[in-house]
Amino acid sequence: MRRQTIGIVGGGQLGRMLTVPAKQLGFDVVVVDPGENCPAAQVGAEQIVGDLYDKEALKKLAEKSDFITVEIEHLDTKELEAIEKLGQPVNPSPRIIRLIQDKYRQKVFLREAGIPTAEIAEITEENAVQIFKKFGGKMLLKTKRGAYDGRGNMLVKSHKDLERGLKQFADAQLYAEKFVPFVKELAVMVVRSKDGEIKSYPIVETIHERNICIEVLAPAEVSEPVAKKAEELAREVVEKLGGVGVFGIEMFLTRDGKVLINEIAPRVHNSGHYTMDACATSQFEQHIRAVTGLPLGDTKMLVTSAVMMNILGERNGPTEVKGLREALTIEDVSVHLYGKSPTKIDRKMGHINAIGEDLQAVRRKAEKARKAVSI
Amino acid sequence: MRRQTIGIVGGGQLGRMLTVPAKQLGFDVVVVDPGENCPAAQVGAEQIVGDLYDKEALKKLAEKSDFITVEIEHLDTKELEAIEKLGQPVNPSPRIIRLIQDKYRQKVFLREAGIPTAEIAEITEENAVQIFKKFGGKMLLKTKRGAYDGRGNMLVKSHKDLERGLKQFADAQLYAEKFVPFVKELAVMVVRSKDGEIKSYPIVETIHERNICIEVLAPAEVSEPVAKKAEELAREVVEKLGGVGVFGIEMFLTRDGKVLINEIAPRVHNSGHYTMDACATSQFEQHIRAVTGLPLGDTKMLVTSAVMMNILGERNGPTEVKGLREALTIEDVSVHLYGKSPTKIDRKMGHINAIGEDLQAVRRKAEKARKAVSI
Repeated sequence: MRRQTIGIVGGGQLGRMLTVPAKQLGFDVVVVDPGENCPAAQVGAEQIVGDLYDKEALKKLAEKSDFITVEIEHLDTKELEAIEKLGQPVNPSPRIIRLIQDKYRQKVFLREAGIPTAEIAEITEENAVQIFKKFGGKMLLKTKRGAYDGRGNMLVKSHKDLERGLKQFADAQLYAEKFVPFVKELAVMVVRSKDGEIKSYPIVETIHERNICIEVLAPAEVSEPVAKKAEELAREVVEKLGGVGVFGIEMFLTRDGKVLINEIAPRVHNSGHYTMDACATSQFEQHIRAVTGLPLGDTKMLVTSAVMMNILGERNGPTEVKGLREALTIEDVSVHLYGKSPTKIDRKMGHINAIGEDLQAVRRKAEKARKAVSI
Repeated sequence: MRRQTIGIVGGGQLGRMLTVPAKQLGFDVVVVDPGENCPAAQVGAEQIVGDLYDKEALKKLAEKSDFITVEIEHLDTKELEAIEKLGQPVNPSPRIIRLIQDKYRQKVFLREAGIPTAEIAEITEENAVQIFKKFGGKMLLKTKRGAYDGRGNMLVKSHKDLERGLKQFADAQLYAEKFVPFVKELAVMVVRSKDGEIKSYPIVETIHERNICIEVLAPAEVSEPVAKKAEELAREVVEKLGGVGVFGIEMFLTRDGKVLINEIAPRVHNSGHYTMDACATSQFEQHIRAVTGLPLGDTKMLVTSAVMMNILGERNGPTEVKGLREALTIEDVSVHLYGKSPTKIDRKMGHINAIGEDLQAVRRKAEKARKAVSI
């Protein structure tokens, strides 16, 4: 039998961190990515240079691959569907990616499946004010498609905000979500195998700034019933999607202890980076196992607590890593750099994982390391 | 500051497993290796095709590198010394590699440093019988140079063996070691930083067949005083060598509870592969930290027990991995494949790490996984 190849649409940091365990398990990897010498190519993936909507590039990927997967949901699902129809396994399925690309349809799907979410409504210039009122004067205005890491999102608290939002997103189809007065944002990474086996990782708390994830606490400091409920819901979402691979399920914990599903990432996810240093099987190896039809690995944590902090770019210009030495003087800290250049303000350039016994102590170590590093 | 590059002499499995954390820490990697698309090149190292005695290849490596290290001790130390003299940091130092290349000189060094080892003697045709008698009729006949994984070693228990050995090794300089009636073989991985900081990993038991390491038990089941003595000795060896980087110190535990140093590996080592899945910092990341002047990581185990089993080639021919699926059904088992082709009988093609609570239970899991896989 010849060596099998995994094709990944996207060769950024997620593609990079998928490539490492893929190689470890004996697979070759090929990625499509627009930037020369992308992060995945730097760790041995073959790269087809092309953007994620480039039909020729995706066709080439399909020709070279035995299994196809994605590191990002912003891509050409039509082309992936064509590839799937030719009999090539694509996981997660393009059907799921298409559903998730449209955040409004995603929410409708969840609500119709009986999964609790925030209230939603489609927004037009005509009904905007009325919905704003209905949602109690506080809502998130979102573009249905193409939104992530804060792009295409706006918190609307006044008619002025609303006017500004409608103007800013004038070209996009919009919907609104009633603002959820959450006390914590939570996430559960779920993996589903080709045989339908489902496993979930411990629940984590995610902390965002400027709509970008900056910190993940594992496990989340929530009550046992909340953790159980959240893990059940997350698994239910993936079960109902019928997806294969790793999914990141993002949630809100409300003041009154309810768990609402906020968003589905049909892929490995920033809130699962802690698994690289804290769990028996990382989310990346797990995803490779799932999409290649291998048995799932154990999701348990090997340590009591773990904290992940993103290293976001702090300036615009050629990448220059400062403070690595200082960060690594801190015990039980790992630094993961993505090999990206140039650096840009708020670009995800790497992350820090810290592990240990007491979550707050671990958090302080991660914070100290994070402060030491600048890129 | 441009990205820094680590040059590794050798791009086999050790070079491969060094490349992964080097990339994670933001370094580029270049290796010299004779085989096209060597294991390290498959995970993103740039490869200079050339053998380890190829002066031009080593010079090219030096030109491209900020730090030079090795994955193997069988190489041209003269060339490395020339590189070192030009001001390029080479770690471990060529001086140490040269000392270790000659197993007789290595043992003389240890004995002169007051480190306990087996009794040794240089062997010539003239004195062979006399030494054989002096060593009680049981000794290991060894070539001073070029011996490893059983090559260049022979257990001599009779005059007939001795005759055969002298004939077989007629072209080599020889020495003999009095046979040590050991109850266990032990190893301690030690790392020393550029500042002279020393850390050691937990002591392990190594199990050999046909002179090749097949299994490593971590931690070794030995008494507290034996573990302490062994760890002290191992650190003392590296201290006295003045080496920078990771060193594998192999030892015998004798029937009467003495620890004798058997051999020094001036590099990451098979007996440290368990650290990849069981320790806060793997031996590979540790070595990268040491040779690039970064602070050392924590060496503690995150799990109670770990067992490593080598996957040795079981036939000669193109590589074909069988049984991966079955192996991965076993909980807490990781499989690490090296991407080598062809496979050969007893060639190191990969390894299995199993982790858990009870060492004997972990050993059974590793064994089951090992039996499932064949390459």
